[in-house]
Formats: sequence, C-alpha cells, structure tokens
Amino acid sequence: MNHPNYVKIVEVGPRDGLQNEKAMVPADIKVALVDRLTEAGFVNIEAASFVSPKWVPQMADGAEVMARIQRRPGTLYSVLTPNMKGFEGAVAAGADEVVIFGAASEAFSQKNINCSIAESIARFEPVAAAAKEKGIRVRGSISCSLGCPYQGEVPVAAVADVVRRMRDLGCDEIDIADTIGVGTPVRVQEVMRAAASEFALDRLSGHFHDTYGQALSNILASLDVGIQIFHASVAGLGGCPYAKGATGNVATEDVLYMLHGMGVRTGIDLDLVVRAGDFISQAIGRPNNSRVGRALLTKWASTEGAAACV
Amino acid sequence: MNHPNYVKIVEVGPRDGLQNEKAMVPADIKVALVDRLTEAGFVNIEAASFVSPKWVPQMADGAEVMARIQRRPGTLYSVLTPNMKGFEGAVAAGADEVVIFGAASEAFSQKNINCSIAESIARFEPVAAAAKEKGIRVRGSISCSLGCPYQGEVPVAAVADVVRRMRDLGCDEIDIADTIGVGTPVRVQEVMRAAASEFALDRLSGHFHDTYGQALSNILASLDVGIQIFHASVAGLGGCPYAKGATGNVATEDVLYMLHGMGVRTGIDLDLVVRAGDFISQAIGRPNNSRVGRALLTKWASTEGAAACV
Repeated sequence: MNHPNYVKIVEVGPRDGLQNEKAMVPADIKVALVDRLTEAGFVNIEAASFVSPKWVPQMADGAEVMARIQRRPGTLYSVLTPNMKGFEGAVAAGADEVVIFGAASEAFSQKNINCSIAESIARFEPVAAAAKEKGIRVRGSISCSLGCPYQGEVPVAAVADVVRRMRDLGCDEIDIADTIGVGTPVRVQEVMRAAASEFALDRLSGHFHDTYGQALSNILASLDVGIQIFHASVAGLGGCPYAKGATGNVATEDVLYMLHGMGVRTGIDLDLVVRAGDFISQAIGRPNNSRVGRALLTKWASTEGAAACV
Repeated sequence: MNHPNYVKIVEVGPRDGLQNEKAMVPADIKVALVDRLTEAGFVNIEAASFVSPKWVPQMADGAEVMARIQRRPGTLYSVLTPNMKGFEGAVAAGADEVVIFGAASEAFSQKNINCSIAESIARFEPVAAAAKEKGIRVRGSISCSLGCPYQGEVPVAAVADVVRRMRDLGCDEIDIADTIGVGTPVRVQEVMRAAASEFALDRLSGHFHDTYGQALSNILASLDVGIQIFHASVAGLGGCPYAKGATGNVATEDVLYMLHGMGVRTGIDLDLVVRAGDFISQAIGRPNNSRVGRALLTKWASTEGAAACV
C-alpha cells in the first residue's frame, strides 16, 4: 500500500457537521468551536454557509461567526455559497475559499434542485468567475459520487463528467463526496482514478460519510491511489437526512489517529481535536461519534482519576 | 491493493462478544443466536467457552449451548479451553476446534496470569497434544499483538516468538489479536509479515477490536499482505475490560459489507446477519454497534413503512 508523507485535512464540522442540527446552536458556540479547531492546527476549516436562512436556518449567523473567529495566518476559512448573493456575503465576511456543489447523480439533482446536473453546475459560472476575479479560491464538491439514495448506483463516468465541468469552471480543488456513505474501497479507487483522469490528483479530495462504517477504509484505499486531501468532522458531527439515524462525516479524531499511526503528518494536534470534540458534543447535547474521542476521553479520565488517588 | 477472492470469517459473538455481559444471558438466547448465525452461512462459529464459572460466570452454560445448537455440516463450532479440564468438557460437548491463548506482551501475561509468556504457552502442551490425538483442530490466539494496556508498545519480534511457540505446539490456525484496538494499518502489516515468517500466511487470522475505529482499515491492510481469515462479532458485541466504554470486536456486518462490496466472497448472507444482530441486541438490551446493521435496519423499516402506505 502506498501513502503520502503529508495529508491535508479539511475540517468540515462547523458547517457540514452542524447544519442539520434542529436546535439553534448559538454563535458563541460556533465561534468557540472554530477557534479550538484553529488552535489544533488545521490549515483549512469550513466555517460557515451563506445560504438562505429559509433553507438552512442553522447557518443564518454565518456573517457573525466569520467576523468573530480568531484567524490564524496560514489557515483558510471556507464558506459554502449556493449563488451570487451567497458569494457576496462570503466576500464581505472575508472568506478565503468559496465552496460550490453539484451531484454526480441525475436523479438526485432533479429531485433536490429540480434541474439537470449540467444546468446546476452552469448556474455556478458567475460565482466561479467572480471568485477568480477577486483571487478567492473555489472548491467544487460532488455529492453522491459513490451512490445515490434515489437511483442507487452512480456510474464512474458520471463522476468524471462532473469533475470535468467543475475543472472548466476553474475550481482549485474538487471533492469526491460519498454523501450516503455506501462506498467500499475497490469502488472508491475506481472513482478516484476516473476523477484523476480529468483533474490533478493532488487537488482531489475524499469526503466520506461513515454511515456504513467504511470511511476510514475508503480513506486508506484513496491514499493508495494518491489522494492527499480528506474531509472530516470533529466528533463525527453531522447526519444525513436521507439515512435516518445514520452517522455523518467520518470523525476527524479517527482519521488523525490512523494517519499519525501510519507516520503520515497532518500538522494537527490530535489531543486538542479530542478536547474540541468533547466541547461541541457537550455543548449541543449529542453523543460523541468519534471512537478515538470516546476511547481517549475515557482513558484520560481514568488516568486523572488514578492520579487523584495517589 | 491486493485482496483474495474468498475470505473466511470466524464469528466470535456468542463467545468473545457475550462473555463480559454482566446480566446472565439465558441459554435459550445463546442457542438461538448460534442457530441464526449457522443459518446465515458461517463456516466457523466460536460458540462457547469451557472456563471455570468462577472466572466467567456468563459462559457457565457452555455444555448446554453446545448440546442444543442445530449444527450444519461444514460449519466448525469452536470452544475456548484454558486447561485440560476445559478441554475434556469441550470434547464431551463435541467441539470441532479448541482455542488456546497467550499474550504477546510480557507485562500483560505477568499481570493477568502471573507467569511469563513462555510458561503460559507451555501449560497448553497437554491440551494441544490431546487435541491432536483426538483429531480436533487447535487454534491459538495471541492477545495484545498490536499494543498492551500495561506496557504500551509490543515488539514485532515478541509476536513472532509467540507465533513460533504456538506453531510448535501444533496449532492449525493462529490469531493475531489487537485486544485493545490500538493498531493502525502500517503497523498491522509489519506484525502480519513478522507472524508469516513463522507460520503459513493462509492460516493466520486477524482479530481486531474497534475501540479506536481502526478495525476495518486494519482488515484492509491485512488483506493487502495476504491474510484471508478474520474474526468478527455480530452487532459488534463485546467490550474490553481494559478500556471502559470502548466497543468490542469489529462488527461482522461492517466487515461483510466491505468485503462483499470489494467482490470478495464469504458465503455469508449479510441480511441474515443483520437480522441476527438485531435479535441479540434487543435480547440483551444493548445498542446495536454495527453501523451497517443500524443503517440497513433503518432503511428496511422505512421501506416497509412506505410499502404499508400504499
């Protein structure tokens, strides 16, 4: 098996992780979470979303969050932008990168945004062009790259086609997202190789949900074909509205534990991420979905307990 | 990445999974669980333990369970045997395979059984010899092969040394067990290669606990170096007394989902395993620790619900 010496982790917990929370998470908590993640050493944090509050009320305070976080030089703060209005908000908030999106599944695209994949991506042309003009990075995220809740299988060629369209828009980085977490390692390698036929391998990323427990294996399989960027969510924050009771993104702590154990550098302090995961899980009253988080917190508690006994 | 076309899964839920349950699980439930697993197609099920009921009260009804299960020709029913008394009970119960054990960690051996690794394995000589004489298979299980709760790191050479000792006792199969679930893929490959320097690669197995969420990745890494036998526990049954709140063995459902997704045959019906996992989780009042189990049960429930709406 091959693996690189360094991997970039994009922490998506503050946006992808929190967006489906029903109870409003106060801006204070969101800011504290991003600040803790910054302190842990991430070079890229997806911090907010500038979508209509009608659609995603949880993300309505994006401008406030972006204004109040303590930025660290060298860390990029990314923002999801569905349209020009969102893009203008993102620019005003000082976003370092805007994220646009599309599906690799025609059924998903039709059902969710009532237009074809090609149309949905063409709609992002003004956003991408405006971002280029302002020197802001653009990332393109391709949902349902490993399977779709409506059509089931998604052809590898469909993923490659969306990669090409996003490349032609000028995307600096493109995410291959397994939105419903159904992918397995061999298929993931096929999809990654197909994506790499249209875009630079070292600017493709893997975004894996852990619904079927496959995310770490899929990361390992992706490393083997040369992928060097992965998305993860602290404490495994997030869920998928298409798979009730399912977990969301792979937990950042679990990814870091594996990578560091393999001698892969990330520049991130695992212990600080575990503390951040404990903080946000308690703050929003959710079980901690990171196995590493749970194991280390338990271990630390018993060590602290034992020390207290001396 | 390499992988074989066929993998043997040893289902250890009825023994390793249930042994730490505090409330007594009735023999009826244990028998029903083994029968459901037999029906799902496993060729090897660790069904009981013939240890002193003083030490493991949960396993006191091993003889009754072995007497009442419906055996399928072609499926081996294994039994854990700590000594000659246990061996005699196992023979009387018609065990197809006896399991003996030792640690790769000197600290673990001293702390838990108050003797050296070498002594602990030498004590199994009469059991192994008697099994050979009766034509009963012997499996040797090596705990703490990837790390120890007392000494931390375990040298690769220590694992290889125990593999050699177990081979010399006449073991037909040897398990490399990550008892506390701390291993990561590159290290797992090193350990497996070292073990294979002393024993046939195709008779070595991987027994991974999922405490740090690494089990599936470690299986994928093991497949890549030629390992073809893995242990798993339905619904992720089991825990580890050395890591409070930690999960136990990797969930069988999650392993099958990955392997089948990769085109690896196991001869096992995943849906029946998911049903068995649901059955035992409900019977003992535990959350289902298989992500695949949770995801598929949720999906089936919503499909059934939708069908009922027609």
